[in-house]
Amino acid sequence: MTEFGFIDSIRRLFAELPDNGFEGIGDDCAVLPLGDGTSLLFTADLLTEGVHFLRAATSARELGRKSLAVNLSDIAAMGARPVATLLSLALPADAEDAWTAEFTEGYRELSARYGAALVGGDTTRSAGGITINVTAIGRAPDAHVKRRDAAREGDVVFVAGELGASGAGLRDILAGRYDTPLAAVHRNPEPQVGEGAWLGARSEVHAMMDLSDGLASDLGHILDRSSAGAEVELSLIPVAPGSDLRTAACGGEDYKLLLTADPSAADRLAADYLARFGSPLYPLGRITARPGLVWLRDGRPEPLDWHGFEHF
Amino acid sequence: MTEFGFIDSIRRLFAELPDNGFEGIGDDCAVLPLGDGTSLLFTADLLTEGVHFLRAATSARELGRKSLAVNLSDIAAMGARPVATLLSLALPADAEDAWTAEFTEGYRELSARYGAALVGGDTTRSAGGITINVTAIGRAPDAHVKRRDAAREGDVVFVAGELGASGAGLRDILAGRYDTPLAAVHRNPEPQVGEGAWLGARSEVHAMMDLSDGLASDLGHILDRSSAGAEVELSLIPVAPGSDLRTAACGGEDYKLLLTADPSAADRLAADYLARFGSPLYPLGRITARPGLVWLRDGRPEPLDWHGFEHF
Repeated sequence: MTEFGFIDSIRRLFAELPDNGFEGIGDDCAVLPLGDGTSLLFTADLLTEGVHFLRAATSARELGRKSLAVNLSDIAAMGARPVATLLSLALPADAEDAWTAEFTEGYRELSARYGAALVGGDTTRSAGGITINVTAIGRAPDAHVKRRDAAREGDVVFVAGELGASGAGLRDILAGRYDTPLAAVHRNPEPQVGEGAWLGARSEVHAMMDLSDGLASDLGHILDRSSAGAEVELSLIPVAPGSDLRTAACGGEDYKLLLTADPSAADRLAADYLARFGSPLYPLGRITARPGLVWLRDGRPEPLDWHGFEHF
Repeated sequence: MTEFGFIDSIRRLFAELPDNGFEGIGDDCAVLPLGDGTSLLFTADLLTEGVHFLRAATSARELGRKSLAVNLSDIAAMGARPVATLLSLALPADAEDAWTAEFTEGYRELSARYGAALVGGDTTRSAGGITINVTAIGRAPDAHVKRRDAAREGDVVFVAGELGASGAGLRDILAGRYDTPLAAVHRNPEPQVGEGAWLGARSEVHAMMDLSDGLASDLGHILDRSSAGAEVELSLIPVAPGSDLRTAACGGEDYKLLLTADPSAADRLAADYLARFGSPLYPLGRITARPGLVWLRDGRPEPLDWHGFEHF
């Protein structure tokens, strides 16, 4: 069963249960409005050895950072700030105290950078490889919370950074080249924490999410949830140095923010973003009423069978 | 490193970070007071194949129930009610769709019984065995939240059920006898959800937690956190049918509530509990000012080197 098949079956099976004030599954985080004008946001990610990482290719410190980074990215993707995390760690006998200490240090570094408390978790032995689950809790004013279903016809589609570096780095790692600059990018994603909270505060930003499975796949989620389509101009996709267009469009784990914005305010948004963060918001195309994702090359539709990334 | 060693090192390492309104590590759950007279509570538990369960000895449905039950027990242990959970699941290729469907059905059954929404999570492949992480969220009036550090000299120590059935069932399972009644108890813990919330509302209940590692170990946590000691009368420990005194005192995973209560109100509390739930609160002994756990046999100290359970 694919992940999305499983999530769909869960959504149906659990639909009859009381929601206890939580919004349902379908965004990067679950949202609990507190009634005081703010909401709490919740997300969880599981990383397993041999599937999400290879111990030989990733230092414990990098893995500590990355296991937190991917969750902070989900919080940022909805316009919130991280407040706390819970860390669960299953360790085989051959993961020694030194490994655990380094992992924890990496986790602490990134927690400190973004002001997230570590408030709980679990640690246990593993009879297999290392498994890590992080649950992150964020908070935002209700009006700042961005969802996938809010894209509107005519919106400009933006991405908040260059794409494809992580996918190219993963190719290096799978080929046994662990020490390339792109492999380092793959192992050290930087969540756009400040950027997400800033974009959350801008009412002209409509839909938002983070790019974990690749533009082709993730933009599809916004389109599905918004009952809309999009045209994306291939020449506008910002390809990271050392990567290529297809990897930028289909590779995963870039953890850049993908958003749609009111066209009448889009130029101002991009200018303010550049002034604030020193790097551009890249416009890629437009949201359309007609469903489906259409790739354009110099303004003309180009049929491409490009899909998103499935984690190795 | 033992779990407690790891948690201690985490607590030190992360102490400099802002707490963002969360109470620190040390109870069954992290607590976030919302400022409206209620608090949210958070807990996470990780279950790994070959360490916490054997696939041959546990049905998928039972495992679905148990992975949720142990978390609901942590919420109950602080006097709160569960409101929502996040479920992360790493599945090897040989855990088929039918297994996943049964697991989910067991998880749903217990969610429905206690009114907990499923609001998020993650699912991924595993290159090793099955790994499950559940994060549970509870809610309670601030004044109902019970902690481990609140035991006072003279308090009566109560346990809210018979002990030792799960530990004896685990022995059966490890000996290959999967179909005994005690093995079934081990696989099907029932969290004391209603009991926990009811005890939370009683101000004469001081400290509370759930028995996951065994009375000898878990009462020690209350004593450490409360800077107190206790005398426990061996003949008062309620031994479950088919178990024995030592397993009742040292075996794990009974998931019964352990609490201390004001002596002047203890009889009334026990009578009201019996009237409400049809089963007794068992008094085991007293909290003392002098640190340490003293076992008594017919009122006389008996030196016993009894420790808690380490998960296999």
